[in-house]
Amino acid sequence: MTEATSPDVAAGKPILIHDPSLRDGHHAVRHSLGAEQLRAYALAADAAGIPVVEVGHGNGLGASSLQVGRARLSDDEMLSITREALTTSKLGVFMLPGWGSIADLDNAISRGVDLVRIGTHCTESSLAERHLGYLRERDVEAHAVLLMSHMASAEQLAEHCARLAGFGATGVGIMDSAGHYLPADVTERVTAMCAAVDVPVMFHGHNNLGMAVANSIAAADAGASILDACARGFGAGAGNTQLEVLVPVLERVGYRTGIDLYRLLDAADVAERELMPAPPTVDSLSIVSGLAGVFSGFKTRVLDISAREGVDPRDVFFELGRRQAVAGQEDLIVDVALALRGSATGTADRRASRV
Amino acid sequence: MTEATSPDVAAGKPILIHDPSLRDGHHAVRHSLGAEQLRAYALAADAAGIPVVEVGHGNGLGASSLQVGRARLSDDEMLSITREALTTSKLGVFMLPGWGSIADLDNAISRGVDLVRIGTHCTESSLAERHLGYLRERDVEAHAVLLMSHMASAEQLAEHCARLAGFGATGVGIMDSAGHYLPADVTERVTAMCAAVDVPVMFHGHNNLGMAVANSIAAADAGASILDACARGFGAGAGNTQLEVLVPVLERVGYRTGIDLYRLLDAADVAERELMPAPPTVDSLSIVSGLAGVFSGFKTRVLDISAREGVDPRDVFFELGRRQAVAGQEDLIVDVALALRGSATGTADRRASRV
Repeated sequence: MTEATSPDVAAGKPILIHDPSLRDGHHAVRHSLGAEQLRAYALAADAAGIPVVEVGHGNGLGASSLQVGRARLSDDEMLSITREALTTSKLGVFMLPGWGSIADLDNAISRGVDLVRIGTHCTESSLAERHLGYLRERDVEAHAVLLMSHMASAEQLAEHCARLAGFGATGVGIMDSAGHYLPADVTERVTAMCAAVDVPVMFHGHNNLGMAVANSIAAADAGASILDACARGFGAGAGNTQLEVLVPVLERVGYRTGIDLYRLLDAADVAERELMPAPPTVDSLSIVSGLAGVFSGFKTRVLDISAREGVDPRDVFFELGRRQAVAGQEDLIVDVALALRGSATGTADRRASRV
Repeated sequence: MTEATSPDVAAGKPILIHDPSLRDGHHAVRHSLGAEQLRAYALAADAAGIPVVEVGHGNGLGASSLQVGRARLSDDEMLSITREALTTSKLGVFMLPGWGSIADLDNAISRGVDLVRIGTHCTESSLAERHLGYLRERDVEAHAVLLMSHMASAEQLAEHCARLAGFGATGVGIMDSAGHYLPADVTERVTAMCAAVDVPVMFHGHNNLGMAVANSIAAADAGASILDACARGFGAGAGNTQLEVLVPVLERVGYRTGIDLYRLLDAADVAERELMPAPPTVDSLSIVSGLAGVFSGFKTRVLDISAREGVDPRDVFFELGRRQAVAGQEDLIVDVALALRGSATGTADRRASRV
């Protein structure tokens, strides 16, 4: 960010890189990152000049719980450690209304957070109104993101983004939470969103179909100016857009990020060594959940229930996709598995319809 | 393949998938695959309906040697085992003139090979003339591929492809050996190649910049009708195009492969379990070699020599790229490392020019 206005990087259109490795990556390690891990990566990311470093429980402020998993560190600890490590990078946090509250926002502000992102399901932007309003009152930079965005049309997303900007968001965007998009899908949606708002538009990809980098470039080409990416793609399942791949590819096609390539690669090496057992790869069930358009966080329960009921977990994912299951509707997995078990048709028939 | 003419798959343009997992993947495991491994994957690929299964030493027929590594099994053993496992998939082999000879072709034909691919450096198509002529005489299907193709212009590649077709190749194409391409690069080159020949055009991607699937789709959109891909991307460094991702993405955008999705995912699971210690991931040096346009097979020697001479291996890769190093020129690594060590300028200057 500090270099974003220097002459040699102003030649291309600037893209602001937002790095949620220490938040979204938490989903891959059951929210278990410790103080030394946060510090090591935050220092490396700061040294590389990454504009925003987001930290927290995978589900954001206030989400540490038995239901979605307890984080090793408290929100306060995570914010303090990361705040101390960052010199030029902004400190970001994520919050899902319902998990987090106004009290959590207050607390994050008192810990020195620079940028708060409020997330909602793609068709429920109104849930963010109160929180965005509060952040505006407190004069804290606030962005808003729509999750599972492939479930809404370009027109719907544009409308919700316009509403979020009206609520005070100074940046709006979409997450491809299920890793379902191909570049043309992103182009259509981001184009519509950019036409609907005057604030920066962001895109957050997942790599279930091997398209996270290509989708992110498509978003930039369609007008997005904030892109999310994680070191080594650190994230659940097939992982997020790989940060240290995205940045040089952006630079090569003419965008400017202000990030130092060698220090960025160093940060990614730190992430691989310190944060994760192994970098994410695209396994077969990640591909299926991406094709089906289902959040890959369902994977463990789909596998367990499918084994118990003797059905093919791939059939379960595709059926969940048809029923438009979203996070919080994990009870649907049992319904679907029972329905498939009871179905008289063989799997061969079902298979043909997937391809 | 067997389903390629059935009514429901004829709706979209057919794409022939060529699977070199058991040949190019060999680079990732020092040519060490054994009989049971070849058999397990070939059976699974055949069951999925993959049109061509290519087998052999990573560098093709006749290449097993001290210089590039000895294969665990002989060419004869690999061909016999795979031939026996395949019922509908064609048996393919690869050959680089110089490593392999007419005698190797004879032998492969006697072992029942269906399709031979002759590879040359992108500007040396004439090296394939004699071998393509011989295969035409013997009435064996023969394709020709240009390696390190990013080093040649679209016009040059088109010209070489036309020559190869003139030599008798019934399929011609390019490999992105260094994983350097972005989709627009592929579109430009494949479009020119398709305009220059009447035979099917192929594309073979590597994933150094996270673009292997997107590049392959760009190739299809530009007119390519043969695409290479490996199970889990099995291959050296960042790996090849991931087969079980590419196929459903192709189907989703309207192409038809005739491959059964579930059996394909099963085959990829077999590959992950039986063939490789772990699926390929995109590490920092793979990114650098892709950006620099250098074959990632240089990695181990670049690391060794850089450590010995006290220089940054990333600088070495970028300088090798500027010098247009190709396989066989490994001696350049020492020259480059010594030149960098002797250079008075700090690495900071060199870094800035990379980004």
